[in-house]
Amino acid sequence: MTLERLISVARGEDPADLVLNNGRIVDVVSGEIYTAGIAIAEGYIAGIGDGYRGVKGVDLRGRYVCPGFIDSHVHVESSLVRPREFARAVVPCGVTTIVSNPHEIANVLGVEGVRFMLGDARSAPLDFLFTIPSCVPATSLATSGARLTKEDIELLLQEPGMIGLGEVMDFPGVVSGDRRILEEIGVCRGLPIDGHCPGLSDRELNAYAVTGIASEHECTTVEEAGEKLRKGMKIFIREGSVARNLKALLPLITPYNERWLCFCTDDRRLSDLMEEGSIDHLVRMAIAGGVPPVMAIRMATLNPAEHFRLYDRGLIAPGRRADLTVFRDLNEPRPELVYYKGVPALRDGIVVMGEPRAVDAKYEAKTRDTIHVEWSGVDLRIPAEGNLIRVIGAVEDQLITESIIMEPLIKNGNAESDPARDLLKIAVVERHLASGRVGKGFVRGIGLKSGAMAGTVAHDHHNLIVIGADDLSMKTAAEAAAFAGGGLAVADGNAVLASLPLPIAGLMSDQPIEVVRGQAAALADALKKLGSPRFDPFMTMSFLGLEVIPCLKLTDLGLVDVNLQKVVPLFMRLP
Amino acid sequence: MTLERLISVARGEDPADLVLNNGRIVDVVSGEIYTAGIAIAEGYIAGIGDGYRGVKGVDLRGRYVCPGFIDSHVHVESSLVRPREFARAVVPCGVTTIVSNPHEIANVLGVEGVRFMLGDARSAPLDFLFTIPSCVPATSLATSGARLTKEDIELLLQEPGMIGLGEVMDFPGVVSGDRRILEEIGVCRGLPIDGHCPGLSDRELNAYAVTGIASEHECTTVEEAGEKLRKGMKIFIREGSVARNLKALLPLITPYNERWLCFCTDDRRLSDLMEEGSIDHLVRMAIAGGVPPVMAIRMATLNPAEHFRLYDRGLIAPGRRADLTVFRDLNEPRPELVYYKGVPALRDGIVVMGEPRAVDAKYEAKTRDTIHVEWSGVDLRIPAEGNLIRVIGAVEDQLITESIIMEPLIKNGNAESDPARDLLKIAVVERHLASGRVGKGFVRGIGLKSGAMAGTVAHDHHNLIVIGADDLSMKTAAEAAAFAGGGLAVADGNAVLASLPLPIAGLMSDQPIEVVRGQAAALADALKKLGSPRFDPFMTMSFLGLEVIPCLKLTDLGLVDVNLQKVVPLFMRLP
Repeated sequence: MTLERLISVARGEDPADLVLNNGRIVDVVSGEIYTAGIAIAEGYIAGIGDGYRGVKGVDLRGRYVCPGFIDSHVHVESSLVRPREFARAVVPCGVTTIVSNPHEIANVLGVEGVRFMLGDARSAPLDFLFTIPSCVPATSLATSGARLTKEDIELLLQEPGMIGLGEVMDFPGVVSGDRRILEEIGVCRGLPIDGHCPGLSDRELNAYAVTGIASEHECTTVEEAGEKLRKGMKIFIREGSVARNLKALLPLITPYNERWLCFCTDDRRLSDLMEEGSIDHLVRMAIAGGVPPVMAIRMATLNPAEHFRLYDRGLIAPGRRADLTVFRDLNEPRPELVYYKGVPALRDGIVVMGEPRAVDAKYEAKTRDTIHVEWSGVDLRIPAEGNLIRVIGAVEDQLITESIIMEPLIKNGNAESDPARDLLKIAVVERHLASGRVGKGFVRGIGLKSGAMAGTVAHDHHNLIVIGADDLSMKTAAEAAAFAGGGLAVADGNAVLASLPLPIAGLMSDQPIEVVRGQAAALADALKKLGSPRFDPFMTMSFLGLEVIPCLKLTDLGLVDVNLQKVVPLFMRLP
Repeated sequence: MTLERLISVARGEDPADLVLNNGRIVDVVSGEIYTAGIAIAEGYIAGIGDGYRGVKGVDLRGRYVCPGFIDSHVHVESSLVRPREFARAVVPCGVTTIVSNPHEIANVLGVEGVRFMLGDARSAPLDFLFTIPSCVPATSLATSGARLTKEDIELLLQEPGMIGLGEVMDFPGVVSGDRRILEEIGVCRGLPIDGHCPGLSDRELNAYAVTGIASEHECTTVEEAGEKLRKGMKIFIREGSVARNLKALLPLITPYNERWLCFCTDDRRLSDLMEEGSIDHLVRMAIAGGVPPVMAIRMATLNPAEHFRLYDRGLIAPGRRADLTVFRDLNEPRPELVYYKGVPALRDGIVVMGEPRAVDAKYEAKTRDTIHVEWSGVDLRIPAEGNLIRVIGAVEDQLITESIIMEPLIKNGNAESDPARDLLKIAVVERHLASGRVGKGFVRGIGLKSGAMAGTVAHDHHNLIVIGADDLSMKTAAEAAAFAGGGLAVADGNAVLASLPLPIAGLMSDQPIEVVRGQAAALADALKKLGSPRFDPFMTMSFLGLEVIPCLKLTDLGLVDVNLQKVVPLFMRLP
């Protein structure tokens, strides 16, 4: 029996499986750093102290060893790679547990999509935990590929690794007492329930928090986060690829409230994960910003472990999982060794993967062929119906958009893109039901001078979204994305300049991270050539359809005023 | 539905049941104190903010309001009153939740005893939570009235209010991998498991902690507590009546480790609860000792709530229970108002009790008639069998004893008490099975000049324990205690000087706290007249039979060397 073996190893009678000697242990409880051996057996820490014998021994030579990092909230799909490959990107970052919300694939494929994620994750040396996507679809203001019912949530709760309810994005629904969302919360009562309520405050925030929603990762200011803390919500400080909130929230952190703070990446592009890092990057940024190193590490380990009730991890102590991250510089932790369940997760810089199980292949098969577009209905022309238009104003590094009133450029009775004013046409083509529905509008802040970009990643409904300087380029890009079974594409006229196929639900590649990173770089190059000054217009574009984050968004049903939660006309006519 | 009502109240549409206005809210998360209204509905905090309407309103006039205090570990039986009456003593202290281990009654009456406690607690305006007594009986070195099997523990886990496994006192058993205790731990895996391992360290402590035992309340020094923190154990800082550890542990507390620290009273006499207080007393002591007030309050609220996974309490925020303590001076919190589930638990200084349920009477009936002594076997004479004796050295304010070697006073071939040297005879009379077994020995440190004291409270086996200057007084006291159906008694010669009947399992009175307090005072007076300089020799005596706390103890089987875990002879013979 495991416990008897652990006790025997702890007492020093039975040799450990592995002993890490001469490590400087970062004790996230006491704040101390002390040198001692770590005896590991059966995947757990059996004892701490010197002189333990082990089948294997590693001399850490004074390197620091801390608990494996935990990402409190992440959408794997945003990396454009499947869970197995995602692990290859973040394990070298010292991440050993992620709490992921498979919200994107759930919007495309429902329960079957979630099952694919669970299965694909199994062979990774990283604990993939999942929250059950709530609010699928987010609202009735867009067409999704699937719907998760209360019964689906009950079903998914039975799956191992499901630890709570994913971000409750429909905050207007919660605040108004919407029955569907209260039922979803009711099913998960007693489990951690993640929040998502950007900008909510005062009595409406009381109404949201009273339901037991216990975390929030959408804070952008210290004031907002401070109020949410007072309402008892844990704050997950996010540093995504587009939404980068860590710097702004650094002044929030005090020795008092730090236990109520965690780190998360939410939506991070693959190149950022591979170059900047994952949670380790947030830890380094926090330390560079003045947070004491042990405190920063605690926000990445003990705090999320406690929040998600993962009592088997989060600190280095007997009985805890031997998920460990080893690094050399306390002021700039860069993982050199990573242990997952007491076994090296990295060997000579290569992530050690397990064998995929045959049984998971059947879920994977269901993730293909998800693009269903009625092309005959796709007419990108926008007949002019007024002398002013509502334009979506994309904001650098934010998920929110502005709602701008501009004069349209009208040619031959149609409103057209006007790159000179950074006014580009945007369309959302319904791609789940082949309904032929197309929402159309304009966006500012993307900066293409010519050509077009298209993708099947468009939160949360993941319809085919396309932005361009002219209709031909837009159609070329859209078709390239769709015909690959889903993907991203850049086109100019009838030429496809670059593409990144995403055959898994139109959201994820089936290729290794190295290939996907190259394809993504080619897309970025193509967009740069077309004149976009932005670093990653695809990430920005993917949020322009998200009708639960203010202010103005576009879905297949049309322009959505998020605050009003209704479709509004593109055109206005002023005398 | 409750949640819909709470949302409606939070939004300000439905009036609250109660609004507390102008309170200074102690925010134990952020460390801030801010003035705002608290809107309460359905027993929960619905909203925080000004301007809420309520069916009732209370103006707190700038008083402080903090979450109700939580006692992390307490044995109700040690107060000598039943749970209902215990509540009357601690509710005025601002305590709204206690985690109690009905270990004493379990050793007398097993599952039925625990059921009595659960039932009796139900009518109190205080959340009685229970841990399941483990290690009943503690060892096989004493005779208990009952045994809790693994199956009993499984059964009790089904009862509402059972939140974990009570202190695992058999630490030598754990460290040696004893199957019985590992099974008990196994049954409760995933729940909070409380520890009890005074003095354990190094590899043995690793072996203890590796089992998942998550707390420890027996620390007496900063060094001991520091090592246990490093092993990942939460430290419950205890200020009992005999074991008073708070002052010694004050230097342990840092802003880093504070979250890992809670307060508990463990064993507190009724008069201490009624005069000094309960957890509020520890909070005041900590503040007086230099701990910042909000931090001290946090150790009494949020920390235990998190440790015991009571996510519905521990801070003042929407969705948390309206268990609140109101006081005037932040530097010396003395509760003036106490709310339990949103209702005043104190009215004009009187604790508001509910009606006992008829169904609980049947459990109460089983708690009577538990004293079974074969008096014909009770011979208190100690024939001299050597020229040295092992004497139990009682240590002021500690549960541990010393083992002292002394020369006996021998008269007519028997070893006798020698009050001049503070050497008193002590006997433990088996009282569960009427076996006639009597353990005999000597104790120093009680200080009686004449007469005797006896009681049926003797941790954990709760046999009849008696200490005296002569055999007649001892027999008179023992019979007085026993004939009352259990109790405490003081006698001199054949006169009973004072007594406190404990008809409930020989452990608890059936009288109100005011009566019991008077009886206890009379006992103390009687002992003072008999020459004892101690404040409460009964409490000290009750631990002299506890064979799991070092060094030398007495049970019905004889003198126990705790470190050796075996019965040792009273006499030694040196040439």
